[in-house]
Amino acid sequence: MTTQQPAPQERRPANRGPKAAAHNRAALIAAAREIFAVQGLDAPLSAIARRAGVGQGVLYRHFPDREAIAAAVLEKNVREIEGAAAVEGTSLDTVLGVVTWHQTQSAAFIGLLHHGMNDRADIRAWSRKLSERVETALRNCLPADHRLSADDLMLAIAMVSGAATGPTPQERERRAVAAWRLLGITVGPVHPFEDE
Amino acid sequence: MTTQQPAPQERRPANRGPKAAAHNRAALIAAAREIFAVQGLDAPLSAIARRAGVGQGVLYRHFPDREAIAAAVLEKNVREIEGAAAVEGTSLDTVLGVVTWHQTQSAAFIGLLHHGMNDRADIRAWSRKLSERVETALRNCLPADHRLSADDLMLAIAMVSGAATGPTPQERERRAVAAWRLLGITVGPVHPFEDE
Repeated sequence: MTTQQPAPQERRPANRGPKAAAHNRAALIAAAREIFAVQGLDAPLSAIARRAGVGQGVLYRHFPDREAIAAAVLEKNVREIEGAAAVEGTSLDTVLGVVTWHQTQSAAFIGLLHHGMNDRADIRAWSRKLSERVETALRNCLPADHRLSADDLMLAIAMVSGAATGPTPQERERRAVAAWRLLGITVGPVHPFEDE
Repeated sequence: MTTQQPAPQERRPANRGPKAAAHNRAALIAAAREIFAVQGLDAPLSAIARRAGVGQGVLYRHFPDREAIAAAVLEKNVREIEGAAAVEGTSLDTVLGVVTWHQTQSAAFIGLLHHGMNDRADIRAWSRKLSERVETALRNCLPADHRLSADDLMLAIAMVSGAATGPTPQERERRAVAAWRLLGITVGPVHPFEDE
């Protein structure tokens, strides 16, 4: 995908035009999602640059600090849920499978749904906005005659987030699926939404 | 209860024997629980000393650091749940009401149930132990013919913790009760257990 850089410092500025920049940005977000999922939100940014195959200078050019790259990952997560919900003829189960995948991958995504808990008002407001976008997406594929209201469905998602803990994504997925089962709610396969 | 000390430094060593020490310790734990519930685990320790009506020197003599006092609060929470479960002829509903009260009061108690998430292995092991004590207490009052297994019940508690977010204990209680309702599980009044 991108050239592997063994040295932590970037050797070449790699200013290869807007196309390469977009490519690097996407690679950094994908790498950050994986690293954050495994190591948590405190993971060293150098690990993200290494995984993306770019130098740290490139990372800092795109994302001045940890908050910026975490925000980009969350934005992409929400956009994928919106994408899954926008597919013609999709079902609530399918979209909940995508939501659950994000819950089991990303501790940050769980934090997002706990927006009431953050100390910083700007982060609270921003994460409330993302959370509302998830709600809107789900509302659009909630059948009118469904047992749950949209509010209940958001509460159920927060509940599954509470259950989706554990040292590995596998264990978190096992617990998340068990939690949906306790709620009597069917979810589709737990996997990411890939926009083809 | 104890003499109010307006100055942040303690004026008198207040070495008034083991009875006063036990009294101060209990007052500090009660104060820490209230302060942590409102301000979170990062609350200034001076606020806890002030609320307990003792000088900071007394606080530090009982609890050398923040971890020590947080641990004492959690230990007391778990002991209260064990106390509620040990009452002759109590019901699961009643004990779950006490558990829910702790969930809505204490962000630290929620963290305890997410012991898989902590970075420090010693804290993980210690909080697993407390979590197992909660499980044992609940198992003892779970009717043999209950719809839920003991594992499911612990998962349900983690789910309710995930839902019990919000800026005030009132809002957290509202959401926790709604979460139990979604699970179809009846809980008794949400209040602390007072050992008489």
